[in-house]
Amino acid sequence: MSSAEVVPVRNATAVAGGRRRGAAPRIDGTRLLNRLDRLAEIGRSEDGGVTRTGFSDADQEGRAHVARQAAEAGLTATVDAGGNLLIRRPDDHRRAQRPPILVGSHLDTVANGGRLDGAYGVIAALEVLQTLHESGTETDHETIAIGFANEEGALFPQPFWGSMVLAGRLDALPSEPEDYAGRPLRDALSRAGGDLSRLKTATWAPGSLTAYLELHVEQGPVLEQLGRSIGVVDSITGRIHMCVQLQGKAGHAGTTPMEGRQDPLVVAARLIQTVQGLAREEKLCRVATVGRVEVQPNSPNTIPDSVRLDIDLRDSDPARLAAAEHTVRGALAALARLGNVRAVIESTVRGAPVQTDPAIRDAIRASATELGYAQETLPSGAGHDAQIVADLAPVGMIFVPSIDGVSHVPAERTAPEDLIAGAEVLLRTVLKL
Amino acid sequence: MSSAEVVPVRNATAVAGGRRRGAAPRIDGTRLLNRLDRLAEIGRSEDGGVTRTGFSDADQEGRAHVARQAAEAGLTATVDAGGNLLIRRPDDHRRAQRPPILVGSHLDTVANGGRLDGAYGVIAALEVLQTLHESGTETDHETIAIGFANEEGALFPQPFWGSMVLAGRLDALPSEPEDYAGRPLRDALSRAGGDLSRLKTATWAPGSLTAYLELHVEQGPVLEQLGRSIGVVDSITGRIHMCVQLQGKAGHAGTTPMEGRQDPLVVAARLIQTVQGLAREEKLCRVATVGRVEVQPNSPNTIPDSVRLDIDLRDSDPARLAAAEHTVRGALAALARLGNVRAVIESTVRGAPVQTDPAIRDAIRASATELGYAQETLPSGAGHDAQIVADLAPVGMIFVPSIDGVSHVPAERTAPEDLIAGAEVLLRTVLKL
Repeated sequence: MSSAEVVPVRNATAVAGGRRRGAAPRIDGTRLLNRLDRLAEIGRSEDGGVTRTGFSDADQEGRAHVARQAAEAGLTATVDAGGNLLIRRPDDHRRAQRPPILVGSHLDTVANGGRLDGAYGVIAALEVLQTLHESGTETDHETIAIGFANEEGALFPQPFWGSMVLAGRLDALPSEPEDYAGRPLRDALSRAGGDLSRLKTATWAPGSLTAYLELHVEQGPVLEQLGRSIGVVDSITGRIHMCVQLQGKAGHAGTTPMEGRQDPLVVAARLIQTVQGLAREEKLCRVATVGRVEVQPNSPNTIPDSVRLDIDLRDSDPARLAAAEHTVRGALAALARLGNVRAVIESTVRGAPVQTDPAIRDAIRASATELGYAQETLPSGAGHDAQIVADLAPVGMIFVPSIDGVSHVPAERTAPEDLIAGAEVLLRTVLKL
Repeated sequence: MSSAEVVPVRNATAVAGGRRRGAAPRIDGTRLLNRLDRLAEIGRSEDGGVTRTGFSDADQEGRAHVARQAAEAGLTATVDAGGNLLIRRPDDHRRAQRPPILVGSHLDTVANGGRLDGAYGVIAALEVLQTLHESGTETDHETIAIGFANEEGALFPQPFWGSMVLAGRLDALPSEPEDYAGRPLRDALSRAGGDLSRLKTATWAPGSLTAYLELHVEQGPVLEQLGRSIGVVDSITGRIHMCVQLQGKAGHAGTTPMEGRQDPLVVAARLIQTVQGLAREEKLCRVATVGRVEVQPNSPNTIPDSVRLDIDLRDSDPARLAAAEHTVRGALAALARLGNVRAVIESTVRGAPVQTDPAIRDAIRASATELGYAQETLPSGAGHDAQIVADLAPVGMIFVPSIDGVSHVPAERTAPEDLIAGAEVLLRTVLKL
């Protein structure tokens, strides 16, 4: 479908009461903003940041809170074996003549992150569903709102957990995942309503979805700088996440001679520099970051015994990403040898760069145009569940501006009118598909 | 006093019952080893390490445990305002014609450290006091056993806390110290029986002590390699401990371009390399270590906001130590500028290198010879409370061998016969002084 072939608004004649096109259902902006405010209170820190790391107590509370809101709106909320929260209209699937459209994002956050990353996409999807339900809008496909589990991987180092389960990429997941403290995902998942032994029941087959739509804050500066309310994402960056363990030998900082030390922190320090250098100086990939370092025993006068660190590499070109990973692995092996420590790559999660579906892009553009919002087509520098779901369905992503372009920090913000605009475009795009 | 002028064993004629020199009181080795075993159970981890970081709950429990043992032995245990545990014989001070001899070490440990570092010196001092008490030995000075508070600084980053208070170095201490999590020392000290507002009452004037004697495990390989049971310490290494805070700017690891990042972890990584390089390559000081790093928010896909790290420099030459500190400060300023982060040195604790008292060294040597133990004179590569107490009294240190030379790790061990030998030499040295 090209942009010349604008899809008719399917519900224009199908809505209860036979509203005309101009009277297509609209979301309740105040309700949307209020819900975002309330959700941001769960896991909020003193400085206004939000911490609902995936499967933490706060995340469980946030998920239960959203499920309750769905129930209060007359919708049904269930949790699949992977811990994804699915919200449906009762009996919507009975009317469906085509495979469902999935709309959503994730509810978990990074540590002391923002209030919108992920949460906005789920709350907006709930708003879309509730609007469809309350207006009695009937479509020829079921619309399902989804809150993916553990997209960030901030507590359990398996980012994209929920979408990988949904997409059936079970072979790429560890069989008994653990969080950074060694606690089993099995228990936390069970508390969330999932079941590690039955992940297969949560997978969807390729072709079993009409589309996946994700609304998200841009997390970058482009839309704000150009003065656009709506971003149409054309590609999502590829991402490699590696969790590395360096094992050395602890010793007294005063009595252990420098010669013969097996200090994993010195090796980690060199590795951190290598990682940033391969994006900054060598330009092997777009960005490269070490955001997490854990030192044991972390005592001021003891040479560390072990260091665990996380490496994050991103690029939209799979070949460049693979080359960057190759360089990191080579550097890790060489540095570990040099420093006489043992290096183990505990896990590697790959999110391939993906292109969004051109037809969905057109539907988003048409929706924004009809609603009178200025738009821009742009790539996503952040990873998203959409790039995982792309394995089994066409995907589309809608961005709204991030004030000052920041995200993953307490200062993450978007103007209220832009938050409403994004949800309006999401609703209309769902109706167009 | 030279080694030719061996001091007579003062108690030889003074002990109750008028025992002869050969019948000088001996410590109860089994009791000593049992007490060490029992103390090692407090704060023990699964891998056999011990964690009683200064003023932690486990440390409080360890201190209370030792105080109870002292009371059961008919001794009196009190806590001074700085939190030091002092154990005395009842009425011993009434007999005293000379200022007291202080004997002890510290009860706190590093995180997952060994069972002997510090604990051995305190338990042996208790054993010496109990032996003197039970044998009715009278001396012309009071003997006081001491367990110094927070020598390691593993929780509250003020190493040598207790001995600095005792030595009256209050100006060098922060007025409201906090632990690494920002909790006030005031509360923890109060729970231990101390009082931050009355530290001055815990200070001793120069000349108010006859001597300070500390028995400790070597924490290095020398005695074991030479096959000696007793080490006579001639000097204690100087030490500088700096706590550095690097403040950058958090951001999304995927959307924040490399240019313009203010990543404090990259700066920390360069600093860690500089620190090790100045000992290993530049030989500016004997050893240099970063043992502790704390990253905020420590999330795998967020550029860190801040990093706090501890730097430990050691050398027996004050000039070299000062030069190493100067180099670290210069490097820190330059690296912070380069990385566009703010660097603050939150605290600097200096333990000057000291020489032990030659007369006390001779008394230790003579005691070891009389008891038939092979001995060696050697420097201490680790810092000890003795180097702080040296401000106000002559100090002496006795070492026993460390198996494999390791310390600050769960595998820290000393042969039982060496532990008994050290305590015997400690007792005899006390009697000689």
